[in-house]
Amino acid sequence: MGSPVGQTGGVTGDVVDLGQKFELISEHWSPKLVATLNDYEVKLVKVQGEFVWHTHEDTDELFLVVEGQLTIQMRDRDVVLGAGQLFVVPRGVEHCPRADAEVKALLLEPSGVVNTGDAGGDLTAVVEAI
Amino acid sequence: MGSPVGQTGGVTGDVVDLGQKFELISEHWSPKLVATLNDYEVKLVKVQGEFVWHTHEDTDELFLVVEGQLTIQMRDRDVVLGAGQLFVVPRGVEHCPRADAEVKALLLEPSGVVNTGDAGGDLTAVVEAI
Repeated sequence: MGSPVGQTGGVTGDVVDLGQKFELISEHWSPKLVATLNDYEVKLVKVQGEFVWHTHEDTDELFLVVEGQLTIQMRDRDVVLGAGQLFVVPRGVEHCPRADAEVKALLLEPSGVVNTGDAGGDLTAVVEAI
Repeated sequence: MGSPVGQTGGVTGDVVDLGQKFELISEHWSPKLVATLNDYEVKLVKVQGEFVWHTHEDTDELFLVVEGQLTIQMRDRDVVLGAGQLFVVPRGVEHCPRADAEVKALLLEPSGVVNTGDAGGDLTAVVEAI
């Protein structure tokens, strides 16, 4: 909440149509920024296959599935999300998303959070706005 | 982000099914808490009719329409959102949501934000978790 009064909240200040935005995404595991809310970012991502096990030590992370079925593997259990279902991975909890078929999801987390958390590696994405 | 490592991120730590949660809501203009993400709250609300003009001086506010058509009136323009569309009302911008027919929407904002902002009045809601 460090921005001045009157600064636009969204990336463009326009309506964000999730379906239209997803059409602009081709790559898997590469979240795209579609809106900001104070110092938080709303991102859209298409995923398929298995990500990497990683942890965000300093923040919770919200997943909302828009289409498909996403499994969020944790060390003590799996959570399976279908369209219209959301889950918050608590900070400090190691997790690894997996999707047997392509999933469209909305992510919410503070600005600057790295998708691979503490794990790094090839799947680390630079987040661009779309 | 003031809570300790390991604190659960969600209200219950469970999957939140938006459809099931909306079935628990009968009152209009009374947001219900379904998840927390650090110091932010994810709320669901059913709305119909016109709200009150109000401003949140210190925070942006995100509206994601799940079902129906929501008009967010601002002093310089209206924004119309359908299902699968989101908009961020920037901090300090006076607005008044309106829905001719019932709308189901997801709201995202920092914990403790009052729904009627600076306006107060009868529509001010105490947010309960569902």
